[in-house]
Amino acid sequence: MSDKYASRMSSVHRSFIREILKVTADPSIISFAGGLPNPRMFPVEPMEAAAREVLGTSGRVSMQYSQTEGDVELRKFISKRYLEKKNLNISPDELLITTGSQQCLDLIGKVYLDKGDKIAIESPGYLGAIQAFSIFEPQFVSVSLESDGPNLEELEQRFKDGAKIFYAVPNFQNPSGLSYSREKRKAVAELLDKYNVLFVEDDPYGELRFMGEDLPTVYSFQKKPGILLGSFSKIAAPGFRIGWLVAGGERRDKLVIAKQASDLHTSTVAQAIMRTYMLENDIDDHIALIRETYGKHRDIMVEMIDRYFPDGVETTRPEGGMFLWSTLPEGCSSMDLFDKAIAKKVAFVPGKPFYADGSGENTLRLNFSNADPDRIEEGIKRLGESIREFLD
Amino acid sequence: MSDKYASRMSSVHRSFIREILKVTADPSIISFAGGLPNPRMFPVEPMEAAAREVLGTSGRVSMQYSQTEGDVELRKFISKRYLEKKNLNISPDELLITTGSQQCLDLIGKVYLDKGDKIAIESPGYLGAIQAFSIFEPQFVSVSLESDGPNLEELEQRFKDGAKIFYAVPNFQNPSGLSYSREKRKAVAELLDKYNVLFVEDDPYGELRFMGEDLPTVYSFQKKPGILLGSFSKIAAPGFRIGWLVAGGERRDKLVIAKQASDLHTSTVAQAIMRTYMLENDIDDHIALIRETYGKHRDIMVEMIDRYFPDGVETTRPEGGMFLWSTLPEGCSSMDLFDKAIAKKVAFVPGKPFYADGSGENTLRLNFSNADPDRIEEGIKRLGESIREFLD
Repeated sequence: MSDKYASRMSSVHRSFIREILKVTADPSIISFAGGLPNPRMFPVEPMEAAAREVLGTSGRVSMQYSQTEGDVELRKFISKRYLEKKNLNISPDELLITTGSQQCLDLIGKVYLDKGDKIAIESPGYLGAIQAFSIFEPQFVSVSLESDGPNLEELEQRFKDGAKIFYAVPNFQNPSGLSYSREKRKAVAELLDKYNVLFVEDDPYGELRFMGEDLPTVYSFQKKPGILLGSFSKIAAPGFRIGWLVAGGERRDKLVIAKQASDLHTSTVAQAIMRTYMLENDIDDHIALIRETYGKHRDIMVEMIDRYFPDGVETTRPEGGMFLWSTLPEGCSSMDLFDKAIAKKVAFVPGKPFYADGSGENTLRLNFSNADPDRIEEGIKRLGESIREFLD
Repeated sequence: MSDKYASRMSSVHRSFIREILKVTADPSIISFAGGLPNPRMFPVEPMEAAAREVLGTSGRVSMQYSQTEGDVELRKFISKRYLEKKNLNISPDELLITTGSQQCLDLIGKVYLDKGDKIAIESPGYLGAIQAFSIFEPQFVSVSLESDGPNLEELEQRFKDGAKIFYAVPNFQNPSGLSYSREKRKAVAELLDKYNVLFVEDDPYGELRFMGEDLPTVYSFQKKPGILLGSFSKIAAPGFRIGWLVAGGERRDKLVIAKQASDLHTSTVAQAIMRTYMLENDIDDHIALIRETYGKHRDIMVEMIDRYFPDGVETTRPEGGMFLWSTLPEGCSSMDLFDKAIAKKVAFVPGKPFYADGSGENTLRLNFSNADPDRIEEGIKRLGESIREFLD
């Protein structure tokens, strides 16, 4: 006999991408489907040195239970970095360390979302956020993402219609690779302030800029600040599962309570190793290396797409991050293309699941961080052939 | 202006114990208030060796994203251990690694609890569970905990009244230190089967038995198995935040989906270090050392209580675990005693918050794992004096 599950479980599904990743585990398939950083970029030796130092000099403290708010020195490091890099004045007491920034979404869902609350999300939008928030049974309302940010008329309409939260990834978004222009950042901040909507600004890729000018957070333009999310996953390594959120006062108290209930605190050992690594190495040097490498990957992928993709397929040209986004001619299904591509041993993620409104059937996401350059060349060639055959 | 929080947040509060721990952080206070393992028992050197091996030989894999279900070799280890120690046949595919066993409670809440669902809990009961489940706004119904397990008439009445879940800690419970007898385990299993109630059997302390006979899990007596929880926090170290749950089939699928939404997966690095430690050391030898040490602590605390506590105060005599539980004469408030005790530089946790029904005003919890023997002697002497003065 089947268990009686909570009603929320009927609207939450296993991650579509994770299911696709199982199909693409075959090493003969060149996969642009995942969203993984390149493991060649992980600072393995310095992390080993950090682990040795942590366990060798403060093992008993770093193996004990610790405070829910997170490692104080790690929070001071993040605070200092916000000031130096973003000119943002954020106290360590306004930071909460989380078990990856995915957990930020769960905590925000817990603290803010009643069943039926409206939450505005970019279309296409980040799948992990749709999954996390779905647990709390909100009503998702979509805002079209244009090449320079959200469609402002749509966004204002969603706010007028009572959206409580707007969740977005303004830098090198997953899945589209698109970023908000400076003007749209300002305009979005003004609308948020005007309609008193809580902005959840997710920024895992902001430091991975290959070209163009660094832009301020939307947070910095807001009079009533939103919640800003960050992560070490893309600048150091994701396996530690360490992210954070920026929230002050009562808001942070509530999020801390929700975190206590969720997992007491993030791994003390993982936090201590990450803190030691950050304090004893120059993370900017390391990020420069990642930028250079991913930038090359991006250039090669763009060049190959220009060469091999047929006319009528449009692809974004991101200035950073880990993803490109292609749009097939109207009426084509990227899900059907997926089967053809797999037959040619190349994989991507069909775009439809990234649309909370069920559209986007002719779109697809391509990751350029994980595969090495020769695989990118060969893979895009194969994918180009698949698309040509598919369109014929 | 204050944020508009979800309605659930009005019924969830900051952990009372964590607030008390702030008062007792003063090192001149002898504290029996926390629930911490003794850091002298942490296997620091072997963990350092494990960390070095993990980062030195498989750093790139252990820093990458990984599967939600958890490290396969770690799950195989847990599976083998259930068979060897408990004669339980549990496949690695029936295990889900979690970010501490606290996360199990959050995931079970997500998957099973609709607002208003009834959940039966021991009185006194584990505070972390009350906190985790509260997020999902269930109705808690209490079952009196007697010296050999729950009051069976009350338990059956709760089941008749439609409880969906029964959550319990049958071995050396937190807070009371009490354990279920073999007979009550069987009787509870029969009632669960009869009324088709989901049992959540939390077992963080089961391996910490100092005396008496090891008893089977309630899980092993059930025809329709419940969900069994486990943790490395008390046998190795809590700072890694690694626990697990046992659940098969569709039930586990749903819990995996909830975990994906919550934090994608538990720290790969922390799991790899724990797995390497477990595979390359004899954990039974280490557990024997913990048992011996905590057993001595328990004996000293019991002896001192017999010597210094006045008549009329009753205290449990646990055969394992980390806690003793004292009951003051009817009408006395342990909250008032707390202030007197702090004045004498000794601390405990007042028992009232452990009762979902608001009773238990005359009870208190004493931890014996964390403080060393000379501090236990001195602390219980001071507490005995405080109680005498308080009762006079």
